[in-house]
Amino acid sequence: MLKPIKKGSLVETAIESLRTAIESDQWPVGTRLPVESELSDALGISRNTIREAVRVLVHVGMLETRQGDGTYVRSNRDAGETLRRIDRSKLAEQLEVRIMLETEAARLAAFRRTDADLKSMSDALDARAAAGNNLNDRICHDEWFHHALVQASHNAALTELYDYFSHAVSQTIERTERDDDLPEPSQEDHELLLAAIRRKDADKAEALSRALLKPSLSALMSGKVI
Amino acid sequence: MLKPIKKGSLVETAIESLRTAIESDQWPVGTRLPVESELSDALGISRNTIREAVRVLVHVGMLETRQGDGTYVRSNRDAGETLRRIDRSKLAEQLEVRIMLETEAARLAAFRRTDADLKSMSDALDARAAAGNNLNDRICHDEWFHHALVQASHNAALTELYDYFSHAVSQTIERTERDDDLPEPSQEDHELLLAAIRRKDADKAEALSRALLKPSLSALMSGKVI
Repeated sequence: MLKPIKKGSLVETAIESLRTAIESDQWPVGTRLPVESELSDALGISRNTIREAVRVLVHVGMLETRQGDGTYVRSNRDAGETLRRIDRSKLAEQLEVRIMLETEAARLAAFRRTDADLKSMSDALDARAAAGNNLNDRICHDEWFHHALVQASHNAALTELYDYFSHAVSQTIERTERDDDLPEPSQEDHELLLAAIRRKDADKAEALSRALLKPSLSALMSGKVI
Repeated sequence: MLKPIKKGSLVETAIESLRTAIESDQWPVGTRLPVESELSDALGISRNTIREAVRVLVHVGMLETRQGDGTYVRSNRDAGETLRRIDRSKLAEQLEVRIMLETEAARLAAFRRTDADLKSMSDALDARAAAGNNLNDRICHDEWFHHALVQASHNAALTELYDYFSHAVSQTIERTERDDDLPEPSQEDHELLLAAIRRKDADKAEALSRALLKPSLSALMSGKVI
């Protein structure tokens, strides 16, 4: 069933082996895993190492331990592995996803923004303008604006997804700001987006959000950069 | 700096303690962590336990180990924790995110779908139709269709995100199909969406995709169900 492990980084290999069995549907969601001693025999590694591998997979949500019962398959996806795969995808693809997340957030924010949301967004834009040519400051306040915008969507799942994705997003922002070949969205583009959200004009907010990074995306797609 | 740990599940508590320090920016991205012996003294737990906690956080992408150098903060987000937070968000919010992901995928698929993509999607819809009143089969083929549609976007980051999110998505689909109070998208709705993608009509594909689950979302939002 499971391939025995000969040598190498044992915990990592045990994780890989268990994950492969789950991803390949050898153990579908809901399956109870064999007990530690069986896994230990099948993989040819110590029970301590098995326990450590199981703990990692519980943490990322693939497995769950039910008190006094056993360990079950909870999901066929490993959140840690997903993050690494997204990191390996192309910059243009990451930017496309970023635009999608921010555009949906802008649309929802136009319906749901509170006064506090508007204040947080306009404070961020004021700080962005005040940063002038200080690139690090401008990037920092730009990120603050986009996070405030996503918060204003009042969708916790979307916000979590955006925060989770913000590692890739930050890289995109830094790249856009630092790479002279990539067109940079202006202060005015940001102000107009905020104005549409303030006016509760969801269609306009959606269109402006999509337009904000469209030139960067086109430049990436055309192969002018990377 | 770090709060010492008194008792309890030591590895989990050590993970929590390290994660909190990173999320609160006590150790910003790029910081090198104190060596194992220092962490061990600060938290009052064994170096083995520290090593295990670090391994979990490396796996989820928060930390990275640089050979012969040390352990560094790589991201201020824990992918495993993100998954659990998304699971805890409201069903209506998860459905909103699902609609966003599928709608963007439908738009991109209209531009990029290959003949193989079209075949995969229409095979899934044929199987969905053939399933008739067999609910388990219909759900399975419905998921297959949506996964094929997202694949046809030819954006690896989007596909990873969708797959990662599919745990929540599956729950939504099952709920939509099983709960009589939630309107179910029809076979015809699915066929029309595929036709728009086949015709490369991105605007139509986008609108149809958004419309597909709109009635379910409205029912959830209006409080008719949950």
